[in-house]
Amino acid sequence: MPHISNKGKLMPESPIRKLVPYADLAQEKGKKIYYLNIGQPDIKTPEVALNAIKNNNISVLSYSHSAGFETYRKKLATYYQNISPSITHNDIIVTTGGSEALLFAMGTIADAGDEIIIPEPFYANYNGFAIASGVQVVPVISTIENNFGLPPVSEFEKLITPKTKAILICNPGNPTGYLYSKEEIDQLAAIVKRHNLFLIADEVYREFAYDGLVHHSILSVEGIEENAIVIDSVSKRYSMCGARIGCLVSKNKEVMSTAMKFAQARLSPPTFAQIASEAALETPQSYFDDVISEYKDRRDLLVSELRKIPNVKVANPGGAFYCIAELPVADADVFAQWLLEEFQFENETVMIAPAGGFYSTPGAGKNQVRIAYVLKKEDLKKAVHILKTALEQYNS
Amino acid sequence: MPHISNKGKLMPESPIRKLVPYADLAQEKGKKIYYLNIGQPDIKTPEVALNAIKNNNISVLSYSHSAGFETYRKKLATYYQNISPSITHNDIIVTTGGSEALLFAMGTIADAGDEIIIPEPFYANYNGFAIASGVQVVPVISTIENNFGLPPVSEFEKLITPKTKAILICNPGNPTGYLYSKEEIDQLAAIVKRHNLFLIADEVYREFAYDGLVHHSILSVEGIEENAIVIDSVSKRYSMCGARIGCLVSKNKEVMSTAMKFAQARLSPPTFAQIASEAALETPQSYFDDVISEYKDRRDLLVSELRKIPNVKVANPGGAFYCIAELPVADADVFAQWLLEEFQFENETVMIAPAGGFYSTPGAGKNQVRIAYVLKKEDLKKAVHILKTALEQYNS
Repeated sequence: MPHISNKGKLMPESPIRKLVPYADLAQEKGKKIYYLNIGQPDIKTPEVALNAIKNNNISVLSYSHSAGFETYRKKLATYYQNISPSITHNDIIVTTGGSEALLFAMGTIADAGDEIIIPEPFYANYNGFAIASGVQVVPVISTIENNFGLPPVSEFEKLITPKTKAILICNPGNPTGYLYSKEEIDQLAAIVKRHNLFLIADEVYREFAYDGLVHHSILSVEGIEENAIVIDSVSKRYSMCGARIGCLVSKNKEVMSTAMKFAQARLSPPTFAQIASEAALETPQSYFDDVISEYKDRRDLLVSELRKIPNVKVANPGGAFYCIAELPVADADVFAQWLLEEFQFENETVMIAPAGGFYSTPGAGKNQVRIAYVLKKEDLKKAVHILKTALEQYNS
Repeated sequence: MPHISNKGKLMPESPIRKLVPYADLAQEKGKKIYYLNIGQPDIKTPEVALNAIKNNNISVLSYSHSAGFETYRKKLATYYQNISPSITHNDIIVTTGGSEALLFAMGTIADAGDEIIIPEPFYANYNGFAIASGVQVVPVISTIENNFGLPPVSEFEKLITPKTKAILICNPGNPTGYLYSKEEIDQLAAIVKRHNLFLIADEVYREFAYDGLVHHSILSVEGIEENAIVIDSVSKRYSMCGARIGCLVSKNKEVMSTAMKFAQARLSPPTFAQIASEAALETPQSYFDDVISEYKDRRDLLVSELRKIPNVKVANPGGAFYCIAELPVADADVFAQWLLEEFQFENETVMIAPAGGFYSTPGAGKNQVRIAYVLKKEDLKKAVHILKTALEQYNS
């Protein structure tokens, strides 16, 4: 039998998927599960996007332009002009989800063996894209004590080598929910300028900022136009995860013409989903106001309920819809599995994502979990109560 | 300014896209262009697929399973059981186009520096996927004199090294239209068995076989279950290029579980397009009968008209909807550009794809072009007449 690649062996399993068989078994046994582990919002997709699909009059479902429909990119440019007035549709390539934008970005700037520095904990799939691209992830640790804020500049500079090509951040962060301040973004800008690196920012949660905090896009920082590459997606913004539409945004012409070659190889992003995404740009502000206020309420509830549990530490997230909690357990992997396999409270349990999979440093985050607040408030409250009861039982 | 990657520099420009600016200019001047260069069929997408989209009742556009909707995979398994009765939905991963299936296949079986042997001329984007994956394409030449049939086994064996991981074929071929015989498929099966290699077959044109010729899938060859990986797509089968739905099919469990990790990293294939693709499986046979008979007529017309032009050599394609023609010109790139920039016949011209981009060996195919017969017969006839007139003028 022929052998699979080392790359294939190294590809990580999703830290969430590992638990799926246990969840399936629990469900088969009639146990109700509250899913705190996933980033699939329960929020309705805007009507305007869904209607555009229902009312489409396509008779031949053709390829679009490899960079995405020009009409869509022109409207997208208007959206980005709120962040940086000089952006045009030529600075945008529409991709199949933020995932593909990341793959294009890594392929465009890094060769096999090159390094990208990422503050950890980070979105677990960055590992997968890095391995697929032959790129080495170099983690720089951020801590729950510091609310997962930006590690000191000196920590980044210790890690920079001739092979370092970029710093990659997620802002606001999945899994931390941390929203970088203007000062932190400026510090990152200074590092990439000084060391001639790219700064890649995954800003897919841009709209999800709470408490009057303002999101600072790297696109709005003057002087790093040639360094800045933004990864974006409609998935969370419009609760359209299944569309698989994202984009890559950069004013660096060489980056864009190179990424375009990757885009041409795969012909085009999906047509139906582009139609929905273009229409989604017409979503009224009231939709976002409602969504943000709902998430803020959920976050407040989640954090305050979690803080009532003895020996649970939780960082207060300023954005996105995740938080990292430190639990009084030795190994969150074992605990998460136990929750599904053995525990029940009135025939209900919760599913959480062990945070170890979001760290690159072995052993880091072993007693942490990521909790997504994508459930409605009453369910969230119940779920945290179940978690509390479970921790009591687990530790007695 | 930070540097882009060598990979990015090596990524080829599409052999078709290079000419697009000249085509745009010609159109701006009011010249009518017959597009013989592209694989975008003019055939209508089946109603059943389009209606499924119009009648969808999604309210939250969620991720699907990373391997694609189970309902879709189960119906797809029924389709493949016509080729190999033992195939189940677990042998199938739904991908974002055949493109992504190829990327997953390459990542699963090859590391940076590994080699894949491909008979040339081949689908130009194989180069792009290989570069993105760090894989080396090793071409083995097939010739117009031999109708682009399989090169002798000895030619493959000369090229096999310890770094060789797979042989990749496209059957029927883009750009050659060649349909491999049972004997040729058996020869390939014997090579991969003997040398413990994977055999990857891009069978996206499977249904497009003419003259009573039968398509022989590598999935139906006994004894290479562990070696065989099929790349497939709905793009051409249902004229749904814009859906971006394909799949990877293999009975090799290790290949599937590894490819699944690549699939999980990018979360899921597009949801709307999966709904359309699942419905497309209900397309009545009469649709295919009509389409195949239309393509056969177009091929017959194209080949017979091309053969009337002095000093034009053309291979008779048994499948797909492309053929390669050898023209009495020194450099098809220059000629194709001249057709757009300088030539006109009654204010009309043709756009053809220079075949050089479909070869990996430098200089090969320099006087060849790929012609796609995706235009209706009267247009095809006019287009060949224009080509004939152009060749006369070019060579006088």
